[in-house]
Amino acid sequence: MDCGVHYRNGVDIMMQSRTHNCGELRISNVGESVTLVGWLENMREVGSGLGFVVLRDFYGTTQIVLETEEMVKTAKAINKESTISVKGLVRERSSKNPKQETGDIEVVPESITVLGRCRYNELPFEINHSREADETARLKYRYLDLRNPEVKKNIILRCNVIAALRQAMTEHGFMEITTPILTASSPEGARDYLVPARKHPGKFYALPQAPQQFKQLLMTAGFDRYFQIAPCFRDEDARGDRSPGEFYQLDMEMAFATQEDVFSVCEDVLPPVFEKFGTYDRASKAPFTRIPYLEAMEKYGSDKPDLRIDLTVTDVTETLKDCGFGPFASTVSAEAAEASEGALTAGAATGVRIKAVVISDFKESRKFIDKTIGDVEVQSGNKAYWFRMDENGELVGGISKFVAPIKDAVVSALSLKAGDLVVLSSGKLTAAQKTAGVIVKTFGAAVPGHMDKEKYEFCWIVDFPMYEIGEESGELEFCHNPFSMPSGGLETLLKAERGEIDPLTITADQYDLVVNGIELSSGAVRNHDPEIMIKAFEMVRLGEEDVKAKFPAMYNAFCYGAPPHAGIAPGVDRMVMLLAGEDSIREIIPFPMNKNAQDIMMGAPSYVTDKQLEELHIKTTATEE
Amino acid sequence: MDCGVHYRNGVDIMMQSRTHNCGELRISNVGESVTLVGWLENMREVGSGLGFVVLRDFYGTTQIVLETEEMVKTAKAINKESTISVKGLVRERSSKNPKQETGDIEVVPESITVLGRCRYNELPFEINHSREADETARLKYRYLDLRNPEVKKNIILRCNVIAALRQAMTEHGFMEITTPILTASSPEGARDYLVPARKHPGKFYALPQAPQQFKQLLMTAGFDRYFQIAPCFRDEDARGDRSPGEFYQLDMEMAFATQEDVFSVCEDVLPPVFEKFGTYDRASKAPFTRIPYLEAMEKYGSDKPDLRIDLTVTDVTETLKDCGFGPFASTVSAEAAEASEGALTAGAATGVRIKAVVISDFKESRKFIDKTIGDVEVQSGNKAYWFRMDENGELVGGISKFVAPIKDAVVSALSLKAGDLVVLSSGKLTAAQKTAGVIVKTFGAAVPGHMDKEKYEFCWIVDFPMYEIGEESGELEFCHNPFSMPSGGLETLLKAERGEIDPLTITADQYDLVVNGIELSSGAVRNHDPEIMIKAFEMVRLGEEDVKAKFPAMYNAFCYGAPPHAGIAPGVDRMVMLLAGEDSIREIIPFPMNKNAQDIMMGAPSYVTDKQLEELHIKTTATEE
Repeated sequence: MDCGVHYRNGVDIMMQSRTHNCGELRISNVGESVTLVGWLENMREVGSGLGFVVLRDFYGTTQIVLETEEMVKTAKAINKESTISVKGLVRERSSKNPKQETGDIEVVPESITVLGRCRYNELPFEINHSREADETARLKYRYLDLRNPEVKKNIILRCNVIAALRQAMTEHGFMEITTPILTASSPEGARDYLVPARKHPGKFYALPQAPQQFKQLLMTAGFDRYFQIAPCFRDEDARGDRSPGEFYQLDMEMAFATQEDVFSVCEDVLPPVFEKFGTYDRASKAPFTRIPYLEAMEKYGSDKPDLRIDLTVTDVTETLKDCGFGPFASTVSAEAAEASEGALTAGAATGVRIKAVVISDFKESRKFIDKTIGDVEVQSGNKAYWFRMDENGELVGGISKFVAPIKDAVVSALSLKAGDLVVLSSGKLTAAQKTAGVIVKTFGAAVPGHMDKEKYEFCWIVDFPMYEIGEESGELEFCHNPFSMPSGGLETLLKAERGEIDPLTITADQYDLVVNGIELSSGAVRNHDPEIMIKAFEMVRLGEEDVKAKFPAMYNAFCYGAPPHAGIAPGVDRMVMLLAGEDSIREIIPFPMNKNAQDIMMGAPSYVTDKQLEELHIKTTATEE
Repeated sequence: MDCGVHYRNGVDIMMQSRTHNCGELRISNVGESVTLVGWLENMREVGSGLGFVVLRDFYGTTQIVLETEEMVKTAKAINKESTISVKGLVRERSSKNPKQETGDIEVVPESITVLGRCRYNELPFEINHSREADETARLKYRYLDLRNPEVKKNIILRCNVIAALRQAMTEHGFMEITTPILTASSPEGARDYLVPARKHPGKFYALPQAPQQFKQLLMTAGFDRYFQIAPCFRDEDARGDRSPGEFYQLDMEMAFATQEDVFSVCEDVLPPVFEKFGTYDRASKAPFTRIPYLEAMEKYGSDKPDLRIDLTVTDVTETLKDCGFGPFASTVSAEAAEASEGALTAGAATGVRIKAVVISDFKESRKFIDKTIGDVEVQSGNKAYWFRMDENGELVGGISKFVAPIKDAVVSALSLKAGDLVVLSSGKLTAAQKTAGVIVKTFGAAVPGHMDKEKYEFCWIVDFPMYEIGEESGELEFCHNPFSMPSGGLETLLKAERGEIDPLTITADQYDLVVNGIELSSGAVRNHDPEIMIKAFEMVRLGEEDVKAKFPAMYNAFCYGAPPHAGIAPGVDRMVMLLAGEDSIREIIPFPMNKNAQDIMMGAPSYVTDKQLEELHIKTTATEE
């Protein structure tokens, strides 16, 4: 691992107690007198007068060869993981190790000095196998876990990715501005972390869930291109890809900007970072594919499509609804189905829809089909069905007895060829779509030839509906973010108010950034105009007071002349997980909390003194068992 | 103000709704059709068909000239501070404005469109004079205050300084690692901000006062060169140079490092940033002057000397103690004074000491002397005295009648010349020193020719005493940080234990970085060895349990083999204040709290709902009036 640190040229400048680091010596250094410092990783005694020590530091490892009984004795007396200083001569190795960067040489010590003794003979786990240890032990002894180069490299990756993102944003004319961490609790969004205010009895600060309001206030204050590697805080339970407590966003916002401006910055900044630091070295080029939300749901069964997979979804309701297979039987009138199809709006369809995914060149076994269908059913919570067109062009297997009688219609609807596997879902629109989405992802990943896995495939999901009919209320409600700009602005809202357009067809200038089936962020052109805000709220039977109540500071600010502005905030932790190829977020955070929101190394959270609570004008009402 | 943002070359790429920004158009653009966006800063009507609009954005201002009655009418109808888009033709100005970057041209609009209306005719203050407004109004309408280029430039400076520090640290092989913000409360240091833990009733997280323990754990985990622009939190009352709540440090730590390593990084990183971004363009070059703590107190009467001043302090106790001037009369036995002088240790001297500051070429009036002495007395809380050697070589004025009789001794002790002013302090050692320090700073700044003001003069204060005799206990106590490495390590402590050396002569490998009389940071070589820690604590009648109780995680970690390590953490806010030449910390923070720890724009802190408190298992015990 070359970390690019070569800050001195010879033995005459002694930095950090060493002449070279442990990853640095090469054949060209043979004959030099050097001083190395690091951790005694291992000591192997070969005979009474021969032994080998592996010395490890941040930069690599170097072999120290012990050739006298005295040196062997000295080294044997030192517990593994002690820090030592080794002064000696660089020598060419007789048997070189091409896997080790310093594998051409070894150091013959003249002296070995202990700098920091490890008191223990026995460690909680073996450093280089710490990933196999119990997670509680790893987190408790995180300082030992991090000595494992395999663990440390993820943290180095994280640091390098963040540094590269910063540099790219700066090169694009963005200025990093830090926003307050002690701020006001907000009625919106997730649960806030609260901080009692000593000087204001009964009142609390809150840690920001995101710097959303501050970045919009910065735009209103006349800043032009803002970004921040922003710490965000949500008091929510842990998930695989979300740490309890704090997480980081690449938060950005641009004044006088449209969706296009945000897209072009992201399309310029992200792919090079993904190509340089990722597990894969290919990433989408600008422009990224753009998929309207409703189309994504229809075509991929997901608003987070993984475009590395070449499978898509076809609606076969009309073709199969009367085939006699029970689950496909429609319970909705033809007119209603027609109407919902025509409008293609979310939540409008209540009848049974049938979705099909065609997988060409399918050569796997019946057992494979059953297993993969089983996986789909477990993941989606819905049934999936299948049939095949065999090499003779016959529809066989699964539910073929229902579709064979209408073979021509089926073949035509799905453009079937010999060798195609067809996997189907059915149910209400959203359930049928989502199950089909699971079919796409599961079969796409499992069946050879349908996924070009080793790349980062980005896309934008655009044109989110602004409104929907609430499932409970049965009335018009906001669909996603009420503070995004409705596409077309005030004019569109007025048209809907006058009954000239269906409010369900209004979209918002809001977008999701998706890579390899994972949502990195939502972003939007913000609604910066109080008049349009009020009108957007009036559509759902609310008004100015409701707008004000949600974000008073921002609303007030916008009344003093705000620029149109837009932004996005890709999740840093999620990006790093993706680049590292890790499934647990704890692998890419230097000092993570456990799933139970505890830092067991530091002992957080903990009881505090009565005096502390008194000063903060609070009392606790319960005590953990 | 050129912010270096030129991200497109012509009118064909339209970024952020404009072809050019408001600071960009030059004589070479004359004849181009352009679109500008920004805030309508001002509209001046000259006649019915002539008017001028100043359009302002982040990058500058551009003059828009209105030449038709209709355009004048359009512009007049728009409230100041609305955001507008102006499409028009660039024309050479007949009367150019050399003070404005775009002063050679003006834009003749073809259309003006309102993008974000300012609802109000009247603003809380005039944007370009916001610095003169009441601070509460400025903070409440911070988004308007920040539109003032004079206010905004400090925030831009802050961002640029931080970006430059980051870049320099990265170039020096340091890796930025973010450490947890939700962590454990610590018994040490200032008051913690606490965060109730929802999932652990009765327990609390704390916001870190500094990432001190985490950075030391990172060293123990095998990281080599760490840094972080680190948010730190202390629940202390506001001061001029300290914001309540959060502040930022350039936190750094190096493994296997000595004081020399830390010094050379700081001496390399800081001066170029100060020279580039500061009010002055000169800064100390490496190596910075190093002054042992006791010498600094003797020679400058301060551990924060301002080396831009050429005055120093001389001890004249022996010469003047018997001169008959009451306040100089010694109350301590000659032997005791002798002993304390010999040891030159802090806190050992209890008798009266007399300190003199000689100011050469003094040509100011008697009134000037009285006023400046008065300033010294107010600042120090102690009396100061003076006499002069006039052009004839006579000692005159002030307390001259007491010193004239022993003129030869006085002249010899202070190497006096004609024209010298001598200002004196007396009292117990520390009081006499500190008053002399105030004399140095006050007279140094006031008397012409003794201060080379327009530069950044850095120095290191080194060799801090490890121990002192406690004023209350009368016993040996830690003097500064108990976790710094005693110079000479275990050996020195053992010598003191065996009575071979006086423990008061033990110094710590601890250092302060001072610039222009302001302390930027304390740093230290850390005590990384549990054995030396315990011994250091035993010297003050404590032991292993006390060490463990203070920092259990760090102590445990050090038992597993820690590298020697050292670091420092210069205050970012303080540096930016110094570079901006601002006296209030609120001028260099984007969204500062007021002195009463409130964000009046956002309404923080605020009351929260009972449900929120219930979930956190706390109750409030008082309510703000």
